Amino acid sequence: MVNALMINILESLIIIGGAEDKKGEKKILQEVCAHIEKESQLLVIVTVATQLPQEVGNEYSNLFYDLGIKNINVLDVRTREDALKPENVELIENASLVFFTGGDQLRITSILGGTSLYSTMKRKHSEGCVFVGTSAGASVMSDVMIVTGLDDESAKKCTLKMAPGLGLITGVIIDQHFAQRGRVGRLLVGVAENPEVLGIGIDEDTSIIVNRENILRVLGSGAVYIIDGSNISDTNVSEQHQDNILSIFDVRMHVLKSGDKYDLKSRKPFL
Amino acid sequence: MVNALMINILESLIIIGGAEDKKGEKKILQEVCAHIEKESQLLVIVTVATQLPQEVGNEYSNLFYDLGIKNINVLDVRTREDALKPENVELIENASLVFFTGGDQLRITSILGGTSLYSTMKRKHSEGCVFVGTSAGASVMSDVMIVTGLDDESAKKCTLKMAPGLGLITGVIIDQHFAQRGRVGRLLVGVAENPEVLGIGIDEDTSIIVNRENILRVLGSGAVYIIDGSNISDTNVSEQHQDNILSIFDVRMHVLKSGDKYDLKSRKPFL
Repeated sequence: MVNALMINILESLIIIGGAEDKKGEKKILQEVCAHIEKESQLLVIVTVATQLPQEVGNEYSNLFYDLGIKNINVLDVRTREDALKPENVELIENASLVFFTGGDQLRITSILGGTSLYSTMKRKHSEGCVFVGTSAGASVMSDVMIVTGLDDESAKKCTLKMAPGLGLITGVIIDQHFAQRGRVGRLLVGVAENPEVLGIGIDEDTSIIVNRENILRVLGSGAVYIIDGSNISDTNVSEQHQDNILSIFDVRMHVLKSGDKYDLKSRKPFL
Repeated sequence: MVNALMINILESLIIIGGAEDKKGEKKILQEVCAHIEKESQLLVIVTVATQLPQEVGNEYSNLFYDLGIKNINVLDVRTREDALKPENVELIENASLVFFTGGDQLRITSILGGTSLYSTMKRKHSEGCVFVGTSAGASVMSDVMIVTGLDDESAKKCTLKMAPGLGLITGVIIDQHFAQRGRVGRLLVGVAENPEVLGIGIDEDTSIIVNRENILRVLGSGAVYIIDGSNISDTNVSEQHQDNILSIFDVRMHVLKSGDKYDLKSRKPFL
């Protein structure tokens, strides 16, 4: 039997498609809180993505406090200089759960990349510290992340910009606000460019919770789209001019709702 | 060798995802004109879908006139009574190409359904008269059509309303303004409800041209999405409560650009 504590140990990554419910049942934020010891362990909110660090930091601090977390700290890193400060590294060193807010994913990587704060985060994650990200904080979790792309448009190669992410999960590209912003086109470009990589599109108020066995489960009010390009039989991704429409044959897609699971290794959904 | 005239004979259905270019190269409208004898044959514009029949009728009349069509008539049917008038039936009887404008697809079927005008259209199409529809006029071409559904949302069953269409093409559900309005969710519901039916999502300024061998080709500046549910391994479409998110495993999807082709019988894309 896998008990709740074991689940907590196994599940070390929660990726939220943005706009998680903050006023109603707060199912996703409740789930986040279920992954640490509310009385004793430290939850650190990382506001590096946003240009309103104080407002956003306060908002999440209050939310998590109301959900019963006793030890909350905000890691307010605004520059690379901040990222080098020993007290900030120590904050992550002591954390049991690290929560990345939304904002701009390039702010996260351009400020944290190559610093001791970054390497501490990577080590902490490998040691079992739970990492959570919403919106920009979701995109940044994979080793390659989408930076910008057109919403509500069909796939054109030139419209997609990708960059190296934090790499807490590998072999996937995450996209957020997925159905709400009509982003299937841009995620298809990412997958077509290298079908070795799996595309994961997460709706607002929806999350995936990934365990160390590479099984993800869905939690939230929307859907999660898995775009599997391993059977693509033909695509013009390498040939066409920049502005041309991308053509892709034989993409496999799964639409998962809350409770559905997916095995990232075997690339199979299950209930 | 298939020559141009033979193509004209073979291709009797042009379905446009709305907002076709009317000011630049007008590629799609040019293609429409290539399907009749410009000097001699009659093109009839059907404005039944729109509540601005005069404006829309004039706009398309001018467009087709500028593209060289000599005989143009507007079928201005606003009520079921209009649909019964012998002079309107005669107009269709004499037509070589019938063009349905956008508007509301339920206006088309609720006004034309069961009338002699409708049965004349069906017979004329079977005899080789070319039918063209854009936007609402596109949706109405299949035997089951999408009436309303949520844009930019993940698939929920209760949000999709379907109704019987004109049935000039069978075994498919057409959706239009596809990427622009984020409609993949609603088309997935339609396909999940009966995977025997193929989902075809057409972008704006993009069209499919279907021939009598059930081969379609894509023309236009956007993409066409084929959603093939024949391999769906699991879905909750029949069990869940109305407002729940739909879950669908193993959907096959193709994204086709201008020039790509698809065989509706074998369900295979080709170049």
